[in-house]
Amino acid sequence: VPPVIGIVGGGQLARMLLAPAARLALPVVLLADPEDAAAPFCRDLIAGRPDADGLRRLAEACDVLTVEHELVDLDTLADLEREGHLVRPSSATLAIAVDKARQRRVLGDHGIPLAPWLVTDAADRVEAFADEHGWPLVLKPPRGGYDGRGVFVADDAAAARAVLAEVGGEVVVEPRLPIDVELSVLVARRPGGETAVYPAVETCQVDGMCREVLLPARVPPAVEQEAVGVALRVAEAIGSVGILAVELFVVGGEVLLNELAARPHNAGHVTIEGAVTSQFENHLRAVADLPLGDTTIRHPSVMVNIVGGDHDPLEHLPGALELRDVAVHLYGKAYRPGRKLGHVTATGDDLDDALRRAQGAATALVEGTPR
Amino acid sequence: VPPVIGIVGGGQLARMLLAPAARLALPVVLLADPEDAAAPFCRDLIAGRPDADGLRRLAEACDVLTVEHELVDLDTLADLEREGHLVRPSSATLAIAVDKARQRRVLGDHGIPLAPWLVTDAADRVEAFADEHGWPLVLKPPRGGYDGRGVFVADDAAAARAVLAEVGGEVVVEPRLPIDVELSVLVARRPGGETAVYPAVETCQVDGMCREVLLPARVPPAVEQEAVGVALRVAEAIGSVGILAVELFVVGGEVLLNELAARPHNAGHVTIEGAVTSQFENHLRAVADLPLGDTTIRHPSVMVNIVGGDHDPLEHLPGALELRDVAVHLYGKAYRPGRKLGHVTATGDDLDDALRRAQGAATALVEGTPR
Repeated sequence: VPPVIGIVGGGQLARMLLAPAARLALPVVLLADPEDAAAPFCRDLIAGRPDADGLRRLAEACDVLTVEHELVDLDTLADLEREGHLVRPSSATLAIAVDKARQRRVLGDHGIPLAPWLVTDAADRVEAFADEHGWPLVLKPPRGGYDGRGVFVADDAAAARAVLAEVGGEVVVEPRLPIDVELSVLVARRPGGETAVYPAVETCQVDGMCREVLLPARVPPAVEQEAVGVALRVAEAIGSVGILAVELFVVGGEVLLNELAARPHNAGHVTIEGAVTSQFENHLRAVADLPLGDTTIRHPSVMVNIVGGDHDPLEHLPGALELRDVAVHLYGKAYRPGRKLGHVTATGDDLDDALRRAQGAATALVEGTPR
Repeated sequence: VPPVIGIVGGGQLARMLLAPAARLALPVVLLADPEDAAAPFCRDLIAGRPDADGLRRLAEACDVLTVEHELVDLDTLADLEREGHLVRPSSATLAIAVDKARQRRVLGDHGIPLAPWLVTDAADRVEAFADEHGWPLVLKPPRGGYDGRGVFVADDAAAARAVLAEVGGEVVVEPRLPIDVELSVLVARRPGGETAVYPAVETCQVDGMCREVLLPARVPPAVEQEAVGVALRVAEAIGSVGILAVELFVVGGEVLLNELAARPHNAGHVTIEGAVTSQFENHLRAVADLPLGDTTIRHPSVMVNIVGGDHDPLEHLPGALELRDVAVHLYGKAYRPGRKLGHVTATGDDLDDALRRAQGAATALVEGTPR
């Protein structure tokens, strides 16, 4: 009989985990705010935060803990593991996934291809790195950034000093790379090491936020194979369980690690319609140590995020639903300009056409002008 | 902004309505038993029964009422309508759908093709009907039967008298027809009359319970068109809103009405994978008066029900998940032999192959022997 899965977090990722949980009769309990996006679709919610108190209450209520975000008290997770609780992914995996400095140290040792990098809080070391690699540089605090927050570009030494002063600690320093394309590869991995890997998706960022995702990525087969290979090696190296999203840069045809997320990821929403088994279902299967589902493409697909504009997209739902063959996903989150409120997916063999349809539906939801 | 949808009932149909409700950000409240199948995946549950008290509490908590089963206090629904509450489908539609005698009277007047029928509680009238149409006859109480319960076959006058004595009231009497095949046609209909109709599915009953469903039905195009046409006329005649499932017999190439269900139906589970828009999503769209989704076939598909055997299918979930390209749906209901506990759907252009795969997965779940 399947374990009770405790999910830390109640955002849209938790909400999208609930549909396959219901389908496979996997019992779920959330540690979340009762106002969170997932709350209306889950009876068993522990109102709390991902701190020691909340995590311990969740651990008592479930058989295995997992996460939908990484802003979790990892020391408590490690304590819970020592006390015999199942935590998937493990606190050790999460500790690497949340820390871009540690990622580079650990994965460099495993031969994962990385851009030149430096971790420092010293301006003179940044300048020496620039002497070697040239300005501009990209500076990122090791922890806490997402959707483009926490990424600074410094054009010169003065700018770099300002970033260091603002951050007030170590940063990861890298050259600003001439990126051909960004890819993400999702790996589902069971506790015993069985993996199922999705074809690479192509991600298009706007202001650092993932906005459009294409499945499959429009890259040569050799690049796709290299990306998948790197992702599998990363999953193995850090012992991930559940979905691991490996974000990659392609620079001059070469695949380089960007960052990791040890959970379902925005880049994988396209798998709901596009793959035989969605990332959400495979995350649950992996966490429950059940056989993984088929990750092959069912339909070439394009996802476009719905980011809050001048109105609440809910007001424009009727118009968007007039559009045929586009799947609308709204997260039920309170409207705020710039906030991710949903996504749309269009499927079809012609990715350019699917992209146009998905963009049209996204525009209909954000602006209220269906086309 | 979409209305709050109040669903009467908390079984697997309500459970399967929750996934598209979450996806489209349609708020839902259930009137159900807290032990029901849908309860773990819905926060807003009113514990109660579909009686006057329960229905009134649900009406206060929602903007529009709908049902996932017909065993509802229709007088109270009619009162609520008079008081200004939205009830979709209406109490008038439900009154026809729940009553096989009334169905025949109303739909015969609208020119819907029916087998010869008689409604009576008098043995001599049954015998006169048999003189005209021959034994055996099928006798059904007008209300309350489902999954083969409430259908009696009488081989002679003595048997018919025994049925009348057991029923203790009127029955619908029909000849036992030499059925070529059984079809169901699902019609989604909005309050203003806009409809979207699914291609006919073929249903295979075992002991009167729907066990296998094929999309599309293996019938000549003319029969399919006739079935769809009859279903659309029925939906119009009874003013259905939401999904109406029209069950049909094909006898000698002629389409005859069998019965109705004014709600999502077992015959439509195959639309989750098989159609562009599932019956569950279209039921919600119709009830919320939103544009209906595309009902065309995405993948030819076969559904096989999981009916409780010697063990709880949950014990066999790992084996069933080893099977590729079969979608497993479990309802989280307590195991009991003979109870519908889930279904599996297989897709593919070769329906015979899909049927074999779905049957194999169903066997794996029921008996624990994957093949």
